[in-house]
Amino acid sequence: MRSVWAPVGVEPSGPCVTPKQPPGPVSKRLRTEMEPIHQTASIKFFVDYEKSVGNYIVDADGNTYLDVFMQISSLALGYNHPDLIKVLSDPRFVTAAVSRPALGSFPRNDFPRTISKALTSIAPKGCPLVQTMMCGTSANENAIKTAFIWYQTQKRGGPPTAEDLASCMNQQPPGTPNICVLSFDGAFHGRSLAALSMTRSKPIHKVDIPAFNWPVAKFPRYKYPLEKNVQYNAKQDGDCLATVEHLIEERKKAKCDVAAVIVEPIQSEGGDHHGSPSFFQGLRDITKKSGVVFIVDEVQTGGGGTGSYWAHESWNLSSPPDIVCFSKKFMVGGYFYGEHLRVKEPYRIYNTWMGEPTKLILLEKAVEVIARDNLLEQVRKVGKGLQSGLRQIESANSSKMHSVRGMGSYCAFNLCDAELRDKFIDIAISNGLHIGGCGDTAVRFRPALIFAEKHLEIALDIISKSIKRL
Amino acid sequence: MRSVWAPVGVEPSGPCVTPKQPPGPVSKRLRTEMEPIHQTASIKFFVDYEKSVGNYIVDADGNTYLDVFMQISSLALGYNHPDLIKVLSDPRFVTAAVSRPALGSFPRNDFPRTISKALTSIAPKGCPLVQTMMCGTSANENAIKTAFIWYQTQKRGGPPTAEDLASCMNQQPPGTPNICVLSFDGAFHGRSLAALSMTRSKPIHKVDIPAFNWPVAKFPRYKYPLEKNVQYNAKQDGDCLATVEHLIEERKKAKCDVAAVIVEPIQSEGGDHHGSPSFFQGLRDITKKSGVVFIVDEVQTGGGGTGSYWAHESWNLSSPPDIVCFSKKFMVGGYFYGEHLRVKEPYRIYNTWMGEPTKLILLEKAVEVIARDNLLEQVRKVGKGLQSGLRQIESANSSKMHSVRGMGSYCAFNLCDAELRDKFIDIAISNGLHIGGCGDTAVRFRPALIFAEKHLEIALDIISKSIKRL
Repeated sequence: MRSVWAPVGVEPSGPCVTPKQPPGPVSKRLRTEMEPIHQTASIKFFVDYEKSVGNYIVDADGNTYLDVFMQISSLALGYNHPDLIKVLSDPRFVTAAVSRPALGSFPRNDFPRTISKALTSIAPKGCPLVQTMMCGTSANENAIKTAFIWYQTQKRGGPPTAEDLASCMNQQPPGTPNICVLSFDGAFHGRSLAALSMTRSKPIHKVDIPAFNWPVAKFPRYKYPLEKNVQYNAKQDGDCLATVEHLIEERKKAKCDVAAVIVEPIQSEGGDHHGSPSFFQGLRDITKKSGVVFIVDEVQTGGGGTGSYWAHESWNLSSPPDIVCFSKKFMVGGYFYGEHLRVKEPYRIYNTWMGEPTKLILLEKAVEVIARDNLLEQVRKVGKGLQSGLRQIESANSSKMHSVRGMGSYCAFNLCDAELRDKFIDIAISNGLHIGGCGDTAVRFRPALIFAEKHLEIALDIISKSIKRL
Repeated sequence: MRSVWAPVGVEPSGPCVTPKQPPGPVSKRLRTEMEPIHQTASIKFFVDYEKSVGNYIVDADGNTYLDVFMQISSLALGYNHPDLIKVLSDPRFVTAAVSRPALGSFPRNDFPRTISKALTSIAPKGCPLVQTMMCGTSANENAIKTAFIWYQTQKRGGPPTAEDLASCMNQQPPGTPNICVLSFDGAFHGRSLAALSMTRSKPIHKVDIPAFNWPVAKFPRYKYPLEKNVQYNAKQDGDCLATVEHLIEERKKAKCDVAAVIVEPIQSEGGDHHGSPSFFQGLRDITKKSGVVFIVDEVQTGGGGTGSYWAHESWNLSSPPDIVCFSKKFMVGGYFYGEHLRVKEPYRIYNTWMGEPTKLILLEKAVEVIARDNLLEQVRKVGKGLQSGLRQIESANSSKMHSVRGMGSYCAFNLCDAELRDKFIDIAISNGLHIGGCGDTAVRFRPALIFAEKHLEIALDIISKSIKRL
């Protein structure tokens, strides 16, 4: 029997940084050390994960920051949560870590129970089936494969024919169909080649990479505050939905059917662009009418930051999405889907690992902790405070920042240009707040679900101070 | 401080199965339980991973099998290896498990050292740089992205221009180039849409999924034994290389350049088709001459099963591959690559997680154990025994099986047709040997590196008995 290391587990009372912004000398030395064996161009700083705790991240130079970025929105319970650490001594975790199964063929005997507790218990309404994958990109890749398989099965009225099976080996129709996925301007759905064909956020992600010729529709760009721009924003919704209908029609005529529409509830990487419930209601109705699979990509919005597990559940759709993708805060990627999309033949949605049971076992505990500690309620409450606090800062600094918006603690605002935004993020971290950017000029909050009133106070104080220094 | 569970850790002296083949009643019940919430079509049986140990897998019904398939070739050290279990109490492992970093931006302060020990220490010659990813498919996706970026950078003579950056957002040239990857008939490179465009093993993987119009060349199909078919096999090599040269030429003329060639040392999923050193030498020379990136996909062959970490190192190439992909036995996906392919701009090869540090920390220990216990030497020795044992069984059963072949313990043989092959696998497992199929008629051995003489004896005995029962 061996002992598991446990961290001290007590958050500091606030950030503590040397006056200069990271990377400090230790991070710089580590980067130099890494340079000959690994790319380093995107590294911001190295982290001491043993010293990081709760809402606080400690860098390799010993600086402590209040972290509202949380590893690009991927830590639901912050750093070194004691309940998660306890899971590591569970025999299920140990065996899953060192004897990794090929889950699609030889699953663990606890797998049905673990899926049920970790995932089915929080399934979005109307999507009872779940498939785990490795990450957000593989979730989206397999979601669209599921959509394509369904679309072709409907069209044929049954499973693939001998002709389909033969022609697909030469990548010719009918086995290899000329069908597509419609996504939105500003969207981010991952970085594999097919995911990049749906991603339309930044050129540096896409340039030099071959892409599928798939259509892109407009996504609303609202003016804030919403209550003062009702007519403008409603027109945005209408115009965007019109482009969607037009593109579906156009592609149908060109015999290159749109099999699926994929959309984020909030375009996150692209700049925290929100869509209204009525926009999404319209989108759901168009896809339903056209027989197109409706995929909601909740890779970043899912997991509690918006005040519930699923941002799309606030839309009041006439019928639920066909597929809902997740990753990040769920620790494992995957997607929920409706029974009608079940793929009957084996080995069509398949790979060696099909997810990662250690993450699922941790997720089971996280879901338990989120319920026990009323964390979604806390997110909604703190989120309200965050939004109203940001609006106060906005009123006092309206020449520099604008468009405060959010759902729960999943908040953002914009600065007047990209240079100012980058400068703001640098000043904030030198003041002890680690926060992210997105799009060209937005600042995004992605705190953990354990972000509480006391952290909010510190965060607002630093934001206010940092905006003033711009 | 808490204790980590540890298994008994002693292998049984042999398999122990009830007369019927799996799935047994417990597996059947679990499958029924899982059906309403998850696909189950490809499940063979459920596994008790707590009772499985070393080379033996124990199913949910308590049957014990000698396992030479090892979770589709992905467990280097078998089940519940005691040295790996010890790693779970390492603070590095604990913090990596519960505080998962976005490795591309905020890596762990031990990351350079861990990469160096776990990966650089076993890097293939000529490929000093490494990038970790989540799985084999994402390794291949990012390997071809790296190739595309290099190819376009060479062509332009520098980084993307303003025109490239603007046009790629509309997925038009020059920013979105019309370039491609050449792969081989029978190849398997994963199941994302781009990976499937390179995969040409089985229709059920590809049907109904849109694909890139990328070229496919012939891969050798040798006759065995090699020494009796020298001329025939040499002609195979020559013919296949001629198709490669022809396709590269043809695509160049069509202004859809082949930017990369991707190839497996042994086409594994496709049926354990080997290529000779002289075939691969020719391929390297053609790619070098044509300015095409040469990618060796060692996702299945890498990690020691062939008697060394890298199957391609036995080819004696005139210059090393440009990129070598790995996953499976490495527990984490990724690729090694040459310095010339380093991507200078940040966020081009990037995603949230960029791999998985818990797996890397386990791999570091596995690499240590493989060296300490001389496991590669053991693989070479046991592999010789396995191959000669199989040839003896072949001579005695030449009407039923043929084409025994292998590198190390990475061995295969063929049965006369698919039905007989499937029947053989069923009989083998009912006799206590868990073994895999591949291609249409092949049987593949993918034992762990800890597969020893005593296991070999049992395996050969069961194979001999099972063949006789066909």
